[in-house]
Amino acid sequence: MATIKDIANKLGVSISTVSKGLHGASDISEDMRQQVLDTAISLGYIVKKRKSSEKHKVCIMVENMDYANINQFGYELITGFRLMAQEQQYQVDVIPMDVYTQTMQSYDDYMKQNSYSGAFFLGFEMTDTYLTQLTHTSIPTVLFDNYVINKHVAYLGTDNNLGAKALIEHLYENGHRKIALLNGSQNSYISNLRFNVLLKEIKNHGLDVPDELIGNGITFQPKTISSCIPQFVNAGATAVVCASDLIAAAAINEIHRLGLRVPDDISVTGFDDLPIAKYLAPPLTTIRQERFTLGKSAFTLLSQLISGTPVSTVLYHSELIIRESVAKINK
Amino acid sequence: MATIKDIANKLGVSISTVSKGLHGASDISEDMRQQVLDTAISLGYIVKKRKSSEKHKVCIMVENMDYANINQFGYELITGFRLMAQEQQYQVDVIPMDVYTQTMQSYDDYMKQNSYSGAFFLGFEMTDTYLTQLTHTSIPTVLFDNYVINKHVAYLGTDNNLGAKALIEHLYENGHRKIALLNGSQNSYISNLRFNVLLKEIKNHGLDVPDELIGNGITFQPKTISSCIPQFVNAGATAVVCASDLIAAAAINEIHRLGLRVPDDISVTGFDDLPIAKYLAPPLTTIRQERFTLGKSAFTLLSQLISGTPVSTVLYHSELIIRESVAKINK
Repeated sequence: MATIKDIANKLGVSISTVSKGLHGASDISEDMRQQVLDTAISLGYIVKKRKSSEKHKVCIMVENMDYANINQFGYELITGFRLMAQEQQYQVDVIPMDVYTQTMQSYDDYMKQNSYSGAFFLGFEMTDTYLTQLTHTSIPTVLFDNYVINKHVAYLGTDNNLGAKALIEHLYENGHRKIALLNGSQNSYISNLRFNVLLKEIKNHGLDVPDELIGNGITFQPKTISSCIPQFVNAGATAVVCASDLIAAAAINEIHRLGLRVPDDISVTGFDDLPIAKYLAPPLTTIRQERFTLGKSAFTLLSQLISGTPVSTVLYHSELIIRESVAKINK
Repeated sequence: MATIKDIANKLGVSISTVSKGLHGASDISEDMRQQVLDTAISLGYIVKKRKSSEKHKVCIMVENMDYANINQFGYELITGFRLMAQEQQYQVDVIPMDVYTQTMQSYDDYMKQNSYSGAFFLGFEMTDTYLTQLTHTSIPTVLFDNYVINKHVAYLGTDNNLGAKALIEHLYENGHRKIALLNGSQNSYISNLRFNVLLKEIKNHGLDVPDELIGNGITFQPKTISSCIPQFVNAGATAVVCASDLIAAAAINEIHRLGLRVPDDISVTGFDDLPIAKYLAPPLTTIRQERFTLGKSAFTLLSQLISGTPVSTVLYHSELIIRESVAKINK
């Protein structure tokens, strides 16, 4: 437990100045008063008091993820979260988080200064500063598609096994033997997990995935995808399994640009089942994630952590949605 | 969808006999009527109707696990489950399941004939017949400490990472460098998982675990444990990490029988934090599983599966409970 002396030492001021700052005396500057209060909060000397009429506040921190409209991945997650939070009279702030803010102020300080009881993290990569700080936080935090060992932190996501198994079976039954993988960012916990599950399922069918059939670290830059697709085609790939619907959409464009047809010349599959998936040409065979259910569950989980129940992990099954982007091969 | 003809074929009787059986005609025997109904249910032709006044029924199937009193592992799991089920007006039957029943009747048939909406599995091993049948069931089923890829089946358990990390850190900080592992049954999903997590944490500290410090496939037969303990002692082990409190209790007895002291000569740790753990001599340092919370969560999960929400996995954090069975080594 921090003392007034700790605050004084940290700020390099006298104990009486700290006392004045804490008690709102008029003979110190507003700037100094604010510094004293901020330091008192960051050292854990005081926790900001909440007026009883004030709503509990939680936040959704978003990094590397779009959520503005229903076609974007984060939209339903946030809508589900808000819905559940509203029922429980919680205020929800959605905060686009950037590298700069994460460098300037620690996660704990940020949360305390803004009186947030907890946070839901969307889209963070393993290298993000706030994610690395979570091993030592005591602030209830729910991570989407990320895992950290800490009893105040829970991992919410999709169990990819069912969808991946069904997808690879579907490709295999349709005659595909050379399956290429277009993976997401290698800094993403879930991309790596998903890649390994897909690879395992392919190998379970006695198939090999040589290096030339693997495209790693794909971001949404068309340049990266445009170098992978010709490589896959040259290696004889009959299907490209993509780590997201957006990567699949870009892959289809690239295949068309090369003068090839989907799925007649090469099949393509996605992941997520965004609303856009069924409107692509051809409509995309993909693996569905229950984003709305996941969003609702995120708030439930955060409430559990806030009330001291040490939930670690909640996963929902994924499901294969068969549309028209996979062809039957007759060889 | 099965037809009346399918039922007739299966039983080797005429279609009119089946029809009479289904409609309760008086000119066939009670025995035949029962056979017709049973076959109709097992083929999915009819699902047993429930009177509206009748409660929904679920069951807890227990195999290889004691639950009769609060000192036994299953007790709080079942109590928590019952508590939640009662609130929702569900009837709960606890069924000690044996190998014979599993061989005589399939899981789906058993559940349908007894009008159970779903089941909670406790203590099953990976080789148990009913567990192997779960890949294809459509009956909502929650497994404790077991995982099956099926959208109607969920895995509930403890995330061992936090507890295992804290335990190995605790041993390391107390000077232990030769840590032996007394593992559970190799047919147990969770024993294997837990063993691998502990092994990883030990290796994270730069320590090796040679074969002579590993006791595998430990059941509760004193004979197996009594062969491992002298082997660990001869290999210079300073601590024995056990896969359960009951294994730890047996290990302590065995160490005492050899004329050695716990923890002065050798430290021992458990897993579970059963009520008995704190009454052992010495009181046992162990990893706590939240059995009551897990039991309550089991019913919540089962309700979700029954209502069609495809939950896959729910895990709770484990916690290290430090008592007196680990000594500080001054070397």
